[in-house]
Amino acid sequence: MTERRERVVVVGAGLAGSLAALHLARRGYEVRVHERRPDPRSALAGPGGRSINLGLSARGMRALDGVGLLDDVLKQSVPMRGRVVHSPDGTVRFQPYGVREHEILHSVLREELISRVVDAAEAEPGVRFHFGSRMVHLDRETATVRVAPTGGGEPAMVRADLVVGADGVFSAVRQQMQHGLRADYAQEFLPWGYKELTIPVGDDGRPRVRLEALHVWPGHEGLMVAHPNRDGSLTCSLFMAHEGPVSFAALDTPTAVVDFFRRHFPDAEDLMPDLARQVADHPVGHLVTVRTAPWRHADRVVLIGDAAHAVYPFYGQGMNSAFEDCAVLDRCLAEHPDRASALAAFEAARKPHTDVLADLSAANFEDLRGRVHRLGYTIAAAADRTLARLLPGRWVPLYAMVAHTTAPYADALARADRQDRILRGAGAGLVLAAALAATTLRAGRRRSAGR
Amino acid sequence: MTERRERVVVVGAGLAGSLAALHLARRGYEVRVHERRPDPRSALAGPGGRSINLGLSARGMRALDGVGLLDDVLKQSVPMRGRVVHSPDGTVRFQPYGVREHEILHSVLREELISRVVDAAEAEPGVRFHFGSRMVHLDRETATVRVAPTGGGEPAMVRADLVVGADGVFSAVRQQMQHGLRADYAQEFLPWGYKELTIPVGDDGRPRVRLEALHVWPGHEGLMVAHPNRDGSLTCSLFMAHEGPVSFAALDTPTAVVDFFRRHFPDAEDLMPDLARQVADHPVGHLVTVRTAPWRHADRVVLIGDAAHAVYPFYGQGMNSAFEDCAVLDRCLAEHPDRASALAAFEAARKPHTDVLADLSAANFEDLRGRVHRLGYTIAAAADRTLARLLPGRWVPLYAMVAHTTAPYADALARADRQDRILRGAGAGLVLAAALAATTLRAGRRRSAGR
Repeated sequence: MTERRERVVVVGAGLAGSLAALHLARRGYEVRVHERRPDPRSALAGPGGRSINLGLSARGMRALDGVGLLDDVLKQSVPMRGRVVHSPDGTVRFQPYGVREHEILHSVLREELISRVVDAAEAEPGVRFHFGSRMVHLDRETATVRVAPTGGGEPAMVRADLVVGADGVFSAVRQQMQHGLRADYAQEFLPWGYKELTIPVGDDGRPRVRLEALHVWPGHEGLMVAHPNRDGSLTCSLFMAHEGPVSFAALDTPTAVVDFFRRHFPDAEDLMPDLARQVADHPVGHLVTVRTAPWRHADRVVLIGDAAHAVYPFYGQGMNSAFEDCAVLDRCLAEHPDRASALAAFEAARKPHTDVLADLSAANFEDLRGRVHRLGYTIAAAADRTLARLLPGRWVPLYAMVAHTTAPYADALARADRQDRILRGAGAGLVLAAALAATTLRAGRRRSAGR
Repeated sequence: MTERRERVVVVGAGLAGSLAALHLARRGYEVRVHERRPDPRSALAGPGGRSINLGLSARGMRALDGVGLLDDVLKQSVPMRGRVVHSPDGTVRFQPYGVREHEILHSVLREELISRVVDAAEAEPGVRFHFGSRMVHLDRETATVRVAPTGGGEPAMVRADLVVGADGVFSAVRQQMQHGLRADYAQEFLPWGYKELTIPVGDDGRPRVRLEALHVWPGHEGLMVAHPNRDGSLTCSLFMAHEGPVSFAALDTPTAVVDFFRRHFPDAEDLMPDLARQVADHPVGHLVTVRTAPWRHADRVVLIGDAAHAVYPFYGQGMNSAFEDCAVLDRCLAEHPDRASALAAFEAARKPHTDVLADLSAANFEDLRGRVHRLGYTIAAAADRTLARLLPGRWVPLYAMVAHTTAPYADALARADRQDRILRGAGAGLVLAAALAATTLRAGRRRSAGR
């Protein structure tokens, strides 16, 4: 009865790492989490002060529900019932996310959400979070990590049975796990970056735009999305090229900023009284896709979240797929008593789908750049929604499958492709029927004329 | 008149690095080459004793001709006039490489070729090769490298104006040039590896197989190619999966080796009297594709050869494209007095084509695995050769464009695609004509019957 509890070291206490820690603790492991940043719950956190918010959708909600945190999290969120598309000509159009009540997203603050999950994990016996503690080395053969205080100081060795790499897109665990092995790895940077900007609450204390929605300013040379906050403000992400004639590099004077907004997002300029200062002050972030394999080493190391599969943010699925990783890993550990098999099953269950998510996220970049405010897109989206209403459960638009269901991404894409073929077939049938009708009509006229 | 000569440090004295050193010396640079391995001309070189040979084709020949080394090199080579395909059923078929006299390849020994180029480079003023000297650090902002003796010893700093990374597929120059920048990088390992084996000269002192050809043993589960040597021996590369039921891992007993050869390459077993020992003793090499960008940093660092674009060996273009890099880089430096523009022009001129070469090399793996000994492939190849003979210069099979011309790879592929469409169109035309003829015939018969 005094069997030693196995120990897991989780590297990274972001979204993936903190939820994995909670799962693993409940599965009976002793869990240590090392995170190089300070505790998100302390005043120290985020001196940069960027409040990033994200859209929680079905996959993330299901994973949070699985650990009993969903209700708490939803209380802190703002529902988003659809997207409001702002066109350069000033048109503003609301597109509902789904056809049913539950088909909505929820805007959550990243640091607030992590804090909730960390609280829940710390409430479990045998869990310790070490903030300000950076992994400097991993020995993949002994599952031993060397950690050191971020501010400098003596490193320490931590021996584990399993190391979980949840340390993000430039994962040190991944690098050291794969070093010198036959590992596939691809990183691809978008030539565009992003800046966080804030639409403050109005002078009357009320939101300056419809709050319960994701706002989108599409555009070929720059695009912006805004998530709502509980206080009535919205956090925008402005996306544009790093360099070139229309780029962050070119927004180098207040005049350039204002000119850019007047041309591309005319109704947004007025929403941000201190726009030029915000653009000048805030840093530019990078956007990168990472695909890799393997995600694991024997029964000792496994990657989750961005460390295994980073995607562009344009489908809003980064957090949701990271949470889904945690739930699937937990299920695999439950189903396979042999941990090496569990980790293999986890990679096999996830990688085909996160690879598809990377493709979908890149494709949605193009949609947001141009297609969402084109007539064809609107008609196709409306047709999709109409069919979904007429054929409940039998016709599900791709976006709805990704955001409002937990169907694996590749399965969602395959089904959407089938639906597309049906629509195209119907279109072709329509054209043929019209041609036939026209011919028949003409023949009828000729017959009448002949009489 | 005492203007300081600009200094280049070339990292790596392989095929790309040694030829680049020669070019750069002739362009007036002071050149230092650091290579971690020993001098290939010394007895120290290759204690592993692997004699790797390669097929020199048009691109490589043109580059060598440009520096006046071609005649020398060809004297040391064995011409390969086509491929001899050995099928598992014992059939042996010769497929000529081209339709014209010059459309042949030349089998050269890698180390011998490098030695010739190093000799030529060292004959230039201001060139020094430092063998056994490893680059340990690159400062991309000052073009300063730290080098250290491979066997251990004091490191030294070398300040340069330009650093050329010719240090192969796992290039340290590339890593340090791109570190922390927005660089795209992808490495992909084939699940197959390779082993070098030797077909010794026969007991009668004569070659055991037709010498002036590349020998190919295609196969779905394992394949082998052999290049001829001047002494009448041939060097084989045996390719198969690293792991699995049919794999290097499974060839773990002499019986397993002999059984494998009897089943897959029945006529090859007799060519290698010490086959089982060779398989047991020789190491397994990895096969990897690398694509990356950028290839350069300002006017100070540039990548060439495998460091910029590693490909699978199945099109026999690794050396040839590395040599082509050197010639193109030299031309760009001649045409652009501003070196940053020259390096940018070099990358723009090469990357689209080496990316295509990576695709072609992966596709040729599939051809070698299965298609070369299928009837359809043979017919298509014969049709291609016939058209090439009938339409000289106007119809060129893809393989011939890649191997026997210096048309950029992407242009070669585009032209081959056009030719394919014409062949498919002709095929479709043939089918329609046949159908029409059959219909006419039947109608004619009906008319006759009706009389």
